[in-house]
Amino acid sequence: MHPKQNRGSVGIVVPQTLRFDAPLTLQCQRTLPFFELVIETYGTLNADKSNAILVCHALSGSHHAAGYHSATDKKPGWWDVFIGPGKPMDTDKFFVVCLNNIGSCYGSTGPTSTNPDTGKPYGADFPLVTVKDWVKTQAMLADRLGVDVWHAVVGGSMGGMQALQWSIDYPTRLKRCVVIASTPKLSAQNIAFNEVARQSILSDPDFCAGRYLEYGKTPKRGLILARMVGHITYLTDEAMRVKFGRDLKTGQLNFNFDVEFEVESYLRYQGERFSERFDANTYLLMTKALDYFDPAQPFLAQARTPTDNDDGSDTHTAEQRALTQALSGTQCRFFIVSFTTDWRFTPARSQEIVDALLASHKAVSYLNVDAPYGHDSFLFDIPLYRRALANFLTN
Amino acid sequence: MHPKQNRGSVGIVVPQTLRFDAPLTLQCQRTLPFFELVIETYGTLNADKSNAILVCHALSGSHHAAGYHSATDKKPGWWDVFIGPGKPMDTDKFFVVCLNNIGSCYGSTGPTSTNPDTGKPYGADFPLVTVKDWVKTQAMLADRLGVDVWHAVVGGSMGGMQALQWSIDYPTRLKRCVVIASTPKLSAQNIAFNEVARQSILSDPDFCAGRYLEYGKTPKRGLILARMVGHITYLTDEAMRVKFGRDLKTGQLNFNFDVEFEVESYLRYQGERFSERFDANTYLLMTKALDYFDPAQPFLAQARTPTDNDDGSDTHTAEQRALTQALSGTQCRFFIVSFTTDWRFTPARSQEIVDALLASHKAVSYLNVDAPYGHDSFLFDIPLYRRALANFLTN
Repeated sequence: MHPKQNRGSVGIVVPQTLRFDAPLTLQCQRTLPFFELVIETYGTLNADKSNAILVCHALSGSHHAAGYHSATDKKPGWWDVFIGPGKPMDTDKFFVVCLNNIGSCYGSTGPTSTNPDTGKPYGADFPLVTVKDWVKTQAMLADRLGVDVWHAVVGGSMGGMQALQWSIDYPTRLKRCVVIASTPKLSAQNIAFNEVARQSILSDPDFCAGRYLEYGKTPKRGLILARMVGHITYLTDEAMRVKFGRDLKTGQLNFNFDVEFEVESYLRYQGERFSERFDANTYLLMTKALDYFDPAQPFLAQARTPTDNDDGSDTHTAEQRALTQALSGTQCRFFIVSFTTDWRFTPARSQEIVDALLASHKAVSYLNVDAPYGHDSFLFDIPLYRRALANFLTN
Repeated sequence: MHPKQNRGSVGIVVPQTLRFDAPLTLQCQRTLPFFELVIETYGTLNADKSNAILVCHALSGSHHAAGYHSATDKKPGWWDVFIGPGKPMDTDKFFVVCLNNIGSCYGSTGPTSTNPDTGKPYGADFPLVTVKDWVKTQAMLADRLGVDVWHAVVGGSMGGMQALQWSIDYPTRLKRCVVIASTPKLSAQNIAFNEVARQSILSDPDFCAGRYLEYGKTPKRGLILARMVGHITYLTDEAMRVKFGRDLKTGQLNFNFDVEFEVESYLRYQGERFSERFDANTYLLMTKALDYFDPAQPFLAQARTPTDNDDGSDTHTAEQRALTQALSGTQCRFFIVSFTTDWRFTPARSQEIVDALLASHKAVSYLNVDAPYGHDSFLFDIPLYRRALANFLTN
């Protein structure tokens, strides 16, 4: 039986485009005159509209979280393992909503959309958006769908940041918050990797100061490099050892710069595919949104005490106090999940969120899943993770 | 008192260029008709020529390991903390030799040298060199200096690979081998990061297929990216947190792609400086030499047993047997040093060398130094590391 007809699949799905006509003022103080969101929904909203789950996507994700777009579609949506009849986000019970965020490149208003002021693609003129901006648009989407209170807001990686921001910005509008493989803020090393990716794109001559679409060009080289470096941080040294080791593509050393090791071949291939499907300005925006995310920041100055050392040794403690403060107004139950081998957002980063929630006596469950796939683990169907997610969403 | 006159400094040093006129056939089967090595020496060779220490440089290093080139020189050589009167490589006792390897860009024959066949710079025509090739030229250098047996061969990172290769290829010509922050071979992740660096350079339009010198160009963007990604792997997440945290360059978010966080500023600056002093073809060659280094490889097929699983689970055991075999003919004493926070070449990689040496009953000391500087730790003056190195070299 074809998986599209499988019991566990939501089958063929059709994205919808919703237009929001009120001007949207962003955190950067710039205003979009209107915007569109592309969404997919799975399952049926119940009569009292209490069974809606919002799924937030990560850096390169889209609204297409489950099912297939056509009968010939080879791959299902990015979180198909968890969304469908009988799955943790059980579409027999829940109405699951996934959207493409503004600033992205899968149909919602973003750098590839037409700027109504110029009639040309926004390109580099598209304003920088933040996690807070996304959550604001997601609240407008909830209004449109008639959902006052989400049964849960769920996300992995950058999606987890959105879930966390929801709990802070709209504390009465979600009952459950699921933050998977995420972090309360990026580390300097995280920012550094993002900066390499951005410089790869910005320094590509075909980037044309962000106006490449107008010139009919693509900063393909930059996107490939950005994806290659990103991809390394999603995997682990050990996973790469098991998958590729030092296996040679042709069985022997070439003594030239052609693809030599299997791992090089894999990275180049992944980079190439990505450069064909993703927009460079979007990549820049998304990494900036990641860098900027820091809900504790407004509370940091007051969290510092006069006895703090200036050498960084007390910084962590002050940052934890600030995060506790940031989360003090939340009202939902939390489920925080990390993965043992994730070195992009390590379990320690999830633990920071857990500690801050515990410090303000919030209801939080935490699971550190033993999984070998690094940061990418959040996309995999790992039995313990699957069961725990299903339990949290149904209890 | 100026450090150049300090008791601990070797003072002003003058590099020498040595020409080797015999054709040199490399591992890639290509031949250099002649080659030059630029070297520096510190201290005095004793009458029986028994006090010579060879220092091997890492990826971006040079022959300039200690002292200053002029009275106005601001920075000393790259390992000045360990080379000089009273230092671990005590120039009152030892005759310390450091050379620039062939294929590099600090004066020894390499891609920036003139190709005698064409009268133009070698550029991309310079053959790929290996760690084994370097050790071969270093043995020719020893002959030229009249050193039959090194008191020690010492190196960190890629320099450690050269020291290890010496113990295998010329077992009777060194008494001590010091392998610091190194590995018996690169992991798939190590190769992946090198591949990102190479693709950064290869995809820079100013690379001009490696002939940029002929066109008066420099693939500066590629070199900057390569250095940025390399630099992240030399530091640690924690060291970057302490040094930069999330500090903002201008104190507030810009909402643009200018330098925003201190860590971005630092990486761009380091990349810029590197692109001014380093040659792109050299960077390509050096990363390839790193990728290729695997002295156990010739013994791997016979180390695999018929009962090994094909899924990679027994690969590690077979690889350890092959490494043991590779090191079975060594005759020197070994000192292996790793650093707790080095995630480029983790302590586990040093332990692989130690285990293989112990398995063939060799004399080996191992020290895992608790240091916060990541891979770069090998360049720092850390008291325990300093004392242990001094002890090993004098006992």
